[in-house]
Amino acid sequence: MKPLGPIPSGYSAVDGELAIGGRKVSDLVAEAGRTPLFVYSRQLIADRIAHLRAAMPKQLKINYAIKANSFAPLLSYVSTLIDGLDIASGGELKMVRASGFDVARVSFAGPGKRDEELEAAITAGVTLNLESENEAGRALAIAERTGHVPRLAIRVNPDFELKSSGMKMGGGAKPFGIDAGRVPALARRIVNAGCEWRGLHIFTGSQALSAEAVIDMQAKVLDCADRIATEAGLVLPKLNMGGGFGIPYFPGDEPLDIQAIGDALAERFERLPETLSEAELFIELGRYLVGEAGVYLTRIIDRKESYGETYLVTDGGLHHQLAASGNFGTVVRRNYPVAIASRFCGEPEEEANIVGCLCTPLDRLADKAYLPPAEVGDLVAVFCAGAYGASASPSAFLGQGAAAEVLI
Amino acid sequence: MKPLGPIPSGYSAVDGELAIGGRKVSDLVAEAGRTPLFVYSRQLIADRIAHLRAAMPKQLKINYAIKANSFAPLLSYVSTLIDGLDIASGGELKMVRASGFDVARVSFAGPGKRDEELEAAITAGVTLNLESENEAGRALAIAERTGHVPRLAIRVNPDFELKSSGMKMGGGAKPFGIDAGRVPALARRIVNAGCEWRGLHIFTGSQALSAEAVIDMQAKVLDCADRIATEAGLVLPKLNMGGGFGIPYFPGDEPLDIQAIGDALAERFERLPETLSEAELFIELGRYLVGEAGVYLTRIIDRKESYGETYLVTDGGLHHQLAASGNFGTVVRRNYPVAIASRFCGEPEEEANIVGCLCTPLDRLADKAYLPPAEVGDLVAVFCAGAYGASASPSAFLGQGAAAEVLI
Repeated sequence: MKPLGPIPSGYSAVDGELAIGGRKVSDLVAEAGRTPLFVYSRQLIADRIAHLRAAMPKQLKINYAIKANSFAPLLSYVSTLIDGLDIASGGELKMVRASGFDVARVSFAGPGKRDEELEAAITAGVTLNLESENEAGRALAIAERTGHVPRLAIRVNPDFELKSSGMKMGGGAKPFGIDAGRVPALARRIVNAGCEWRGLHIFTGSQALSAEAVIDMQAKVLDCADRIATEAGLVLPKLNMGGGFGIPYFPGDEPLDIQAIGDALAERFERLPETLSEAELFIELGRYLVGEAGVYLTRIIDRKESYGETYLVTDGGLHHQLAASGNFGTVVRRNYPVAIASRFCGEPEEEANIVGCLCTPLDRLADKAYLPPAEVGDLVAVFCAGAYGASASPSAFLGQGAAAEVLI
Repeated sequence: MKPLGPIPSGYSAVDGELAIGGRKVSDLVAEAGRTPLFVYSRQLIADRIAHLRAAMPKQLKINYAIKANSFAPLLSYVSTLIDGLDIASGGELKMVRASGFDVARVSFAGPGKRDEELEAAITAGVTLNLESENEAGRALAIAERTGHVPRLAIRVNPDFELKSSGMKMGGGAKPFGIDAGRVPALARRIVNAGCEWRGLHIFTGSQALSAEAVIDMQAKVLDCADRIATEAGLVLPKLNMGGGFGIPYFPGDEPLDIQAIGDALAERFERLPETLSEAELFIELGRYLVGEAGVYLTRIIDRKESYGETYLVTDGGLHHQLAASGNFGTVVRRNYPVAIASRFCGEPEEEANIVGCLCTPLDRLADKAYLPPAEVGDLVAVFCAGAYGASASPSAFLGQGAAAEVLI
């Protein structure tokens, strides 16, 4: 038997079934008309953001990194609850514009911005987080050609990393940002060129569950920003301190202690250096805001035995749940939180493997899980499906196509 | 420095650039109008299939597993060169029907077939490779309801595996097929029900580079098929012996010795048991037919230094090249064959990392590769991009969208 990841809080049971926002999964599926189906809960997103704001210092602003989930209704909803959006491509800029969000509160980071993406961002008034001197030169040239004053920040590749994070994005050689030592010179160049100076972006990693690690990282980010600003002889109008707030996916994972992070940050904010005293201070979160608010529902279409093992074969799979299948940035596959949604209150009585419908051994949703006995027609829930699910999976693989999505 | 995988044969240089089918990559990109671009070569596909047929016994038939690459023009072209198609979903059935291919020469395997997919296949006259007794029951019920005589084969989960294969799909408990010991009873049930009996499908694994392992597997497949047929008291009208023919991706990989496989198979075919003497004998290949005939072209949009390392940032990435990025069924990332396509004859002089444009550290195309010095504007080629590239990657990730594709 292999353990399952922890089911996030906020879910309940109605008539023995999993309920999302108080509604039974069978009703949600009936309304959507098909499986597989991603269900995202407005209430869980709102609760998460309210809880976060309550824990953080008042002046801290919260950006949503739309790469986590850009499903249009969800993006529109989250936009009403946060202070700004972070995008990572020209395609994401189009999504944000379609949603009607104020583009002056959007910033654009990403190591490979094409000229047309830079131009679209500059002419729209989006803040560019510059990732290299070369990109700065291209942005300045486009601004001059188009007659716009570009809003420019610099993404810093700091000389430290977010410890114990799932993905490190700072510390040592990286494709992201500009090595900290070279940033002051570029900052002066930008200011001297008459651009609108938008400060720094320092993103060091993601998916950390240790408050201590995040606190340590945030302290270093503030110090690093101060050092750079001091050396450049500039104050910072804005500092994006990055994100890194993780969510529990796997057995043994514990939720991040955000109160501890908020307390430490509040203390730091009371003694900010002069370079930061006027700065708008942001954190940038994606997964933390929406990840646990989403559930992926897929129906069992076969139940079979092979050499003594039971397989529940579903109509979903890795084409919608690449990370849950263990094939995205994972070395050793572990089980996500998964349940038989239509028997949510059932007693676990058997060990079963839940697999997807794809004709490849990579398509696994749960290995050797201890579950209530499930039959053809039952619904399986994969939790933590609100971030990096639908858009981060190869939906065209084996001709399957996209899942349905709904915000409730 | 980390080595690169071996560049497949059949590529050449024109004016110092990589040429595909005799045409310079810069011309191909100019014609397509953009990068990233997948280029698939008719000539290389035709050469591969001709070479394969020359090595194999005359009576061996070759199926194409369209999951490897279902780009419509490529599918249409490959269809003219092979004996049948294997599909893995109702979506792939639609692609095959759109191509005008004779559906009587199509078979459908896959552990999670929905009722509507079974019905579409049965009414079209596609052969179903049954994956469980439950699926058999559903197929028989649909056939009765719709008044069709279904064409049914059984997929066997054999008690052996393809040794040294990249992906094992037989041997021990598996979600694929029916354990060999239970197949005779199901075969009799199908025949007694008046269905068109289409024999067996025994697929044990994929991506093997050892001829010895494939020869051993094929011998066991033939023995297994004979045992099942004998026990069922049936002759086999057809046997799909599976695939497993791999291609070299990584440093040190050597091409599969298909002549050795063909010779061993010819010898076996001269002494086939009575149960197989009338059988159409097939192998089923995807990657082996088209994988090396495709190249992914992406343009360098930034060149940057970080802590002494050089990064070439491209406009492509894992959203089109999930496997090459090391994030699909790989434990330890190794470099695919990659080259600076626009300086194909250049002398390697520097170590560089080639990364994609996505804002994630997972997006790597080559680590610490020894390359001719490349600049912004140069084209990068990722080889072995003809199979499991475009359709097996999360093209919507970070709002990037699909690559262009062209068959030349």
